[in-house]
Amino acid sequence: MDENEHLKAAAAAARQASHILARSPAGTRNAALRTMADAVRAGMREILAANAADVAAYQGTAAFLDRLTLTEARVEAMARGLEDVASLPDPLDRVLADWTRPNGLRIRRIATPIGVIGMIYESRPNVGADASALCLKSGNAVILRGGSDSLHSARAINAALQKGLVAAGLPEACIQVAPTADRAYVAAMLAGAGLLDLIIPRGGKSLVERVQREARVPVLAHAEGLCHTYVHAAADPAMARRILANAKMRRTGICGATETLLIDRSIAASLLPLLVADLRALGCAFRADAAARAIVPDLPAASPTDFDTEWLDAILSVAVVDGVDAALAHIAAHGSEHTDAIVTEDAAAADRFLRGVDSAVAMWNASTQFCDGGEFGFGAEIGIATGRIHARGPVGLEQLTTYRYLVTGTGQVRP
Amino acid sequence: MDENEHLKAAAAAARQASHILARSPAGTRNAALRTMADAVRAGMREILAANAADVAAYQGTAAFLDRLTLTEARVEAMARGLEDVASLPDPLDRVLADWTRPNGLRIRRIATPIGVIGMIYESRPNVGADASALCLKSGNAVILRGGSDSLHSARAINAALQKGLVAAGLPEACIQVAPTADRAYVAAMLAGAGLLDLIIPRGGKSLVERVQREARVPVLAHAEGLCHTYVHAAADPAMARRILANAKMRRTGICGATETLLIDRSIAASLLPLLVADLRALGCAFRADAAARAIVPDLPAASPTDFDTEWLDAILSVAVVDGVDAALAHIAAHGSEHTDAIVTEDAAAADRFLRGVDSAVAMWNASTQFCDGGEFGFGAEIGIATGRIHARGPVGLEQLTTYRYLVTGTGQVRP
Repeated sequence: MDENEHLKAAAAAARQASHILARSPAGTRNAALRTMADAVRAGMREILAANAADVAAYQGTAAFLDRLTLTEARVEAMARGLEDVASLPDPLDRVLADWTRPNGLRIRRIATPIGVIGMIYESRPNVGADASALCLKSGNAVILRGGSDSLHSARAINAALQKGLVAAGLPEACIQVAPTADRAYVAAMLAGAGLLDLIIPRGGKSLVERVQREARVPVLAHAEGLCHTYVHAAADPAMARRILANAKMRRTGICGATETLLIDRSIAASLLPLLVADLRALGCAFRADAAARAIVPDLPAASPTDFDTEWLDAILSVAVVDGVDAALAHIAAHGSEHTDAIVTEDAAAADRFLRGVDSAVAMWNASTQFCDGGEFGFGAEIGIATGRIHARGPVGLEQLTTYRYLVTGTGQVRP
Repeated sequence: MDENEHLKAAAAAARQASHILARSPAGTRNAALRTMADAVRAGMREILAANAADVAAYQGTAAFLDRLTLTEARVEAMARGLEDVASLPDPLDRVLADWTRPNGLRIRRIATPIGVIGMIYESRPNVGADASALCLKSGNAVILRGGSDSLHSARAINAALQKGLVAAGLPEACIQVAPTADRAYVAAMLAGAGLLDLIIPRGGKSLVERVQREARVPVLAHAEGLCHTYVHAAADPAMARRILANAKMRRTGICGATETLLIDRSIAASLLPLLVADLRALGCAFRADAAARAIVPDLPAASPTDFDTEWLDAILSVAVVDGVDAALAHIAAHGSEHTDAIVTEDAAAADRFLRGVDSAVAMWNASTQFCDGGEFGFGAEIGIATGRIHARGPVGLEQLTTYRYLVTGTGQVRP
């Protein structure tokens, strides 16, 4: 079989499994998540051995190697993650709307699974287990295609998850992994209109952009998080310092980290030196425009592309702006419609900013690093979406559902 | 300029216009819809003249010619349609969810426009005006590509609509038509990832399937409506007769018309002859399976592909089944996930059917022809969607919106 035939067979099995899953009670899906957790613990030795083979073959960077490497503690965390998802509220069969027409027809909009989801991700083996849990809980079958570097790990984890599924009476085809590391399998998934209902890519910008460019299947994703924190003229200086330090430096490698500081000219002279000193103390470097360098002369000059760069590192782009509209114009020109924040005590300015910024998440007086399914109260997330369709922002269980209508009558016919 | 450059220029203008539109108050958008209606009435002579040119050049079927032809009454109906949309509730800025986290962050999910929509449609010139109204009301810019047969009509209507837009102070680029009838413009739209946020095709199966197959942009559509009415063993016979006659024959050419009757074996002997007689009296023909022909011998035999055929005509496929599960299996094998109905007095059977059928709309004791935005109370619809993402069933104003999050804090930082 070539990759297209492999995918067709996997998708056909997934489709059948998805119908069983869609009709399964929440109790069955939750029981399966718990037996899957048990199976992961029982398969600890096999999973670590498979991961050791991936690690031994790996020849890249130390940072990547750390993400690739599993330990007993990380496998145990994976099992606990499955149990955590079991404890979340059921996202299916929620009544999203319920109304009765003048002719007596009752119309209900009901949350229902999407169907068969394709997940394409890189390196970190736990992403496969987390995605499996969220898809299963939301009644969706999933086909996972992890990075070629973690193929053995992904297979071993999947073998454990499938044992858990079968123990709970659900078909093992609910959760499948690509049988090959060939990149042609990704191409087959991207071309899989009718086979897959949705593709979720998780990984670097080039992977996600390839998926967005080539997919003939709907995609939920973000290619980058070029997030801004705008310190308005009426900001509380102490709050601005606290928020910016957190938004930039708490973790620099996540998509909700602030990459650019915009600061109003009228407070820049007094506040920018303090913000720079705070961040320097935390190890942050800068790329600043001329107006910012006029205030803090030792800031390095920004190049023309720096304001379009998602650093994912301890580097902050800095620009001085003249008020809310200028901040909005900068964000529209350089942002990625992910998460953008204003810090101000002026409610009218905040309102203008929140209305004007067209990002998935707009924040007022909070750290952009709160853009996260856990922090939103979703319990877990499969990713962040910055597209315009279906779901924006953190993608949790609710966002992994769609809806259908139930219309109940008493013999109504249409005039 | 070739078609790609034309589309790029139109999309760039539409993107700018969409930002203005997204921030415009409902009052402005509604005022624009009313001045657009005035402008359509004022442009009556130009619109009819342009349409006369299309009609004179047209060389196809009489049915198509009728749909292409505009009259004073049809143009007036177009203008009234614009005013009707102005009267509908505003779909923007609705608070879809609102909660506060333990750390005090308040999170609101707010309805917001999708952005720039591409509409690809055939023949009937009023579709362009209706789609323009719904897109404008929901804050979306739209680029319309009508059929080549109606190009002059589409341009004349668009000229009037743009006059109305400008009179209300909105940019004319909110509503644009393709400048050419070249099919390459459709190809440019389908390839327009990043330029268009959503494509809505309205037309025959081959058009919609081409769009679904080739688009690199999200699509909301239905390729066909192969709808079933299942008459269960416990159906009220009089209700079943009333519903089936309406579901099949009220209008045979709409996507919610029933194409296949499934009837339980246990009541087929008594009820099928009556259903056949009712429909024959209305001019309906039949394609029946062997079991149905054993009961009503003069029914023509169904060929293997008849149960996969959307007739859009006074023809009904008929199959005898053994209970709910067999009906569900038939629908899963032959349906199009559009609208499927059960007729029964048995609530448990109805529940089993409604849970088991995975269509956008599942009905109990009602005519499938109720699958319509107007009948759902949406006021108007731009189409029906049978995909799995974003929206299913009738696509009205709400379904032309997406959402974003507003997160308001008091200086929270993430631990």
